[in-house]
Amino acid sequence: MPEFRNPAPTVDVVILLPGDRVVLVHRKNPPLGWALPGGFVDEGEKLEDAAVREAREETGLAVVLSEQFLAYSDPRRDPRRHTISTVFVGRADGEPRGGDDAADARAFPWAGLPSGVVFDHDQILADVRRYLLTGARRRL
Amino acid sequence: MPEFRNPAPTVDVVILLPGDRVVLVHRKNPPLGWALPGGFVDEGEKLEDAAVREAREETGLAVVLSEQFLAYSDPRRDPRRHTISTVFVGRADGEPRGGDDAADARAFPWAGLPSGVVFDHDQILADVRRYLLTGARRRL
Repeated sequence: MPEFRNPAPTVDVVILLPGDRVVLVHRKNPPLGWALPGGFVDEGEKLEDAAVREAREETGLAVVLSEQFLAYSDPRRDPRRHTISTVFVGRADGEPRGGDDAADARAFPWAGLPSGVVFDHDQILADVRRYLLTGARRRL
Repeated sequence: MPEFRNPAPTVDVVILLPGDRVVLVHRKNPPLGWALPGGFVDEGEKLEDAAVREAREETGLAVVLSEQFLAYSDPRRDPRRHTISTVFVGRADGEPRGGDDAADARAFPWAGLPSGVVFDHDQILADVRRYLLTGARRRL
């Protein structure tokens, strides 16, 4: 099969910690700002495995995934290139520690999320929060 | 950003027709057999737009998507290369007509799906059917 230029598959992980908190990382590379832990899916790697790997690399946390949420694919969601992110929800214990592409990793209470969240991650966080509270998924 | 070799994002669409029927296409190219309508996502194209486009190209039907279901990413799901398929559910009226990569397109009753369904589309069909009947999504 010829190789076409495709959008790049990525994952992002909403890591829930005890105390109604969620983990964000501060990016080392542009766009700078807070973001969900995540990254590119490797050739030969399942989405679920990529999500657990990226969470571990960027936060030090061993995440147990509970759910595949939704995929976000707007071509403008990443200024660098067209990415399609499948979002997972998972749980972990302990405190996050920034690593790899993350200069910092911190747990925020849902009620006190930082400003300056990059990409469409503010939208993802709002969608997941609503889903956790109501069971309602974003409709098409 | 350097270009890595990534899995290729695809879509598949479970098209529901009146009379509790679902649309399958008979593939023109290997692997030969019945499959869900679907295909590769173009650079710059949203998943939803790819799903509507592929459904139209392969079945002639104007599909109204109702739901983004789940993404399937096992590296062995397609014998040709690693694809990650995001599955949509939608509705249409009229009768399907094969086109593009589909030699044939037909509506099957859920109770009478054909044998020889290729890829992991038998699993996807079973997962979607259970979801439509019970509201339960496949867990991780």
